[in-house]
Amino acid sequence: MRHFDEELDELRSRLLEMSGLVEDAIYRSVQCLVDDDEAQAQQVFRNEARINQMEMEIDGLATRLLALQQPLATDLRFITAAIKINSDLERMGDLAVNIVERALWLLREPGPMPLIDIPDMARRAQAMVRRSLDAFVKRDVALAQGVLLSDDAVDELRDTLYEELIRFMQERPAQVRRGVNLMFIVRNLERLADHATNVAEDVLYLVQGIDVRHHTLQEQPKVEG
Amino acid sequence: MRHFDEELDELRSRLLEMSGLVEDAIYRSVQCLVDDDEAQAQQVFRNEARINQMEMEIDGLATRLLALQQPLATDLRFITAAIKINSDLERMGDLAVNIVERALWLLREPGPMPLIDIPDMARRAQAMVRRSLDAFVKRDVALAQGVLLSDDAVDELRDTLYEELIRFMQERPAQVRRGVNLMFIVRNLERLADHATNVAEDVLYLVQGIDVRHHTLQEQPKVEG
Repeated sequence: MRHFDEELDELRSRLLEMSGLVEDAIYRSVQCLVDDDEAQAQQVFRNEARINQMEMEIDGLATRLLALQQPLATDLRFITAAIKINSDLERMGDLAVNIVERALWLLREPGPMPLIDIPDMARRAQAMVRRSLDAFVKRDVALAQGVLLSDDAVDELRDTLYEELIRFMQERPAQVRRGVNLMFIVRNLERLADHATNVAEDVLYLVQGIDVRHHTLQEQPKVEG
Repeated sequence: MRHFDEELDELRSRLLEMSGLVEDAIYRSVQCLVDDDEAQAQQVFRNEARINQMEMEIDGLATRLLALQQPLATDLRFITAAIKINSDLERMGDLAVNIVERALWLLREPGPMPLIDIPDMARRAQAMVRRSLDAFVKRDVALAQGVLLSDDAVDELRDTLYEELIRFMQERPAQVRRGVNLMFIVRNLERLADHATNVAEDVLYLVQGIDVRHHTLQEQPKVEG
């Protein structure tokens, strides 16, 4: 068996690779609407299949490390964080697929496309995924806290988008189905940001040993993500 | 330190207790609409606070067991399953709160209340939570597989409800905001059912050692949940 540290590096780099696929999937899930390009949507399905495969492999690797190495303290906390992050990344892949299913309906059904700030929201969610994984790899507390604050900005954006889409549907009842599909895309982007937030919370717990999951950073000044 | 088996029993019974709170929260989150009773909604917030607290305690217990007992094989699989189920239950508590936030808006804003089959969907999701935890405690494969099949029935119910709510909004544009709130309640119920399905999949992996997460039981006959 390889040295324990090499196995931990392997775990880290597999999670980074997986998050790269997730980021790509988030970007394409919305960009296919901007570019009117179904090929990008299809790539999201391929990414998800690969993400699912990686989830099982990473789970196997983490479980093997727990069983064979019987790690203590810090390493144990690292491996349990990896198991949770793995699960969050897998669900992010599912969310990108949910978005793309809505996007394909929108692409195929002719009608108005009030994307408003949806592409901006997708960019923010994607950046949160990247920064949360960076924070994990670098054990960077400030970076992880930044992700938590970005989540507040995403929630505000979501509220604005909901209001605009509700107005769109009220004014154009024949377009209710389009509006609903766009609202679900917004909802899924918000959930992607929530999963990145989960990852950032796991990083804070890993580095500081403090459980911030059910507390907020509201006391601190807001920083734009 | 207590005997290892006692600690495992403790883990099991804490998870059962937590799932009882989740079930109660799911029931009340929708029942408050049926009964026009805000007191039931408030109980959901109290349950969620308790669920969050329990999640951290159970995580601590599981991590301590991993660190101090260095369990192998079956026990290790049991503890990692418990960590995942704990996380699923915590997110179910959040989903019940999401439902209740929508429900409170609906209760306070006068207007029609087309609940349609939403209470039925809530009952099904609640039953799936109970059965998935029963399957975990009893290591019952048939029960776990039943949960996976119930999820298909819930997805069908969701599709029907979406169609009815879209029609409601198209016909009554002034009620679009009500329709949207009800759609999000349906969406959250579906996600509750998905989390119960995650638990059932963890049980199958625990008992059979087979990872069914990214496969389906579609080949088997459908059983009504």
